[in-house]
Amino acid sequence: MRQLKLSRAFTLLEPGPVVLVTTHDGKKNNIMTISWTMVLDFTPLFAITTGEWNYSFAALRTSKECVIAIPTVDILDQVVGIGTCSGADTDKFARFKLTPVRGKVVRAPLIKECLANIECKVIDILGKHNIVVLEGLAAYMEPARRERRTVHAVGDGTFIVDGRKLDRRAMMASKIPEGA
Amino acid sequence: MRQLKLSRAFTLLEPGPVVLVTTHDGKKNNIMTISWTMVLDFTPLFAITTGEWNYSFAALRTSKECVIAIPTVDILDQVVGIGTCSGADTDKFARFKLTPVRGKVVRAPLIKECLANIECKVIDILGKHNIVVLEGLAAYMEPARRERRTVHAVGDGTFIVDGRKLDRRAMMASKIPEGA
Repeated sequence: MRQLKLSRAFTLLEPGPVVLVTTHDGKKNNIMTISWTMVLDFTPLFAITTGEWNYSFAALRTSKECVIAIPTVDILDQVVGIGTCSGADTDKFARFKLTPVRGKVVRAPLIKECLANIECKVIDILGKHNIVVLEGLAAYMEPARRERRTVHAVGDGTFIVDGRKLDRRAMMASKIPEGA
Repeated sequence: MRQLKLSRAFTLLEPGPVVLVTTHDGKKNNIMTISWTMVLDFTPLFAITTGEWNYSFAALRTSKECVIAIPTVDILDQVVGIGTCSGADTDKFARFKLTPVRGKVVRAPLIKECLANIECKVIDILGKHNIVVLEGLAAYMEPARRERRTVHAVGDGTFIVDGRKLDRRAMMASKIPEGA
């Protein structure tokens, strides 16, 4: 994996793909699948919706770290599988044949099979609304990967795969942050 | 526009499309384009990132209402145009030839040319993180529209159009909320 400029990391989440979030609770790694994420700024700060109903939440709260990994359509069945079992009784890296890779900053692992990874620290937990605020610390992209299409959850068990890309850079020049 | 079950409204935002948010400040309508949105729960509650840098924020804060409208790829140039000018000096409905339609609950208008619309009230503003929490009150879908592909902003001036749909309903049966 090649390091990606941190100023571009928000572009991994802005399109709204399904993501994997890894944690390390001091003893073991875990992964959850989430679709409820949002960019908060370009630095980048992110928000995710999670809470006690996710087994990973305890590790997120105590370690104050995680990795957001961006999967592509070729591993959708693993992504769905990860979202429908619990780290309480499953080693998800082993069960879904994914490879944890040590990052530079946090103890939660990157996922080798994903298109991109963002090491994050938890900077706030807004318990009232089940929002966790994350700061991206380092980002990585796999340049050699052929399949680069991400997937968007609809929420009813169906998923939309990325289609074609449209360029509106000229129209949007005044709004694109430097480095994006 | 046909009313959509409120229990399905979260499925409009979960895939992460670019959306239009309309407001009414007591005198005039306005529209902003945003991509930073997130589902908070199935009731549905949503979060959006916005603040003083958006002219619409003042109307959102004082009226405590808005409509989230979901555009499709055929009106992308209007969506980008709306995001690159200000309601301070522009009547965006007139300039971009969009039709405001009176909703049932809030004074902010639905947008006739959009695939779907959600009437919302502001239930919290988390100023520290520029997060506005919205509750969806009524939702609508245009059943007759042929173009139904939404668009995902990358954040660098490019956009990804919806591609094909994959069905994982059977695998996800345990996780799909009732009514979705």
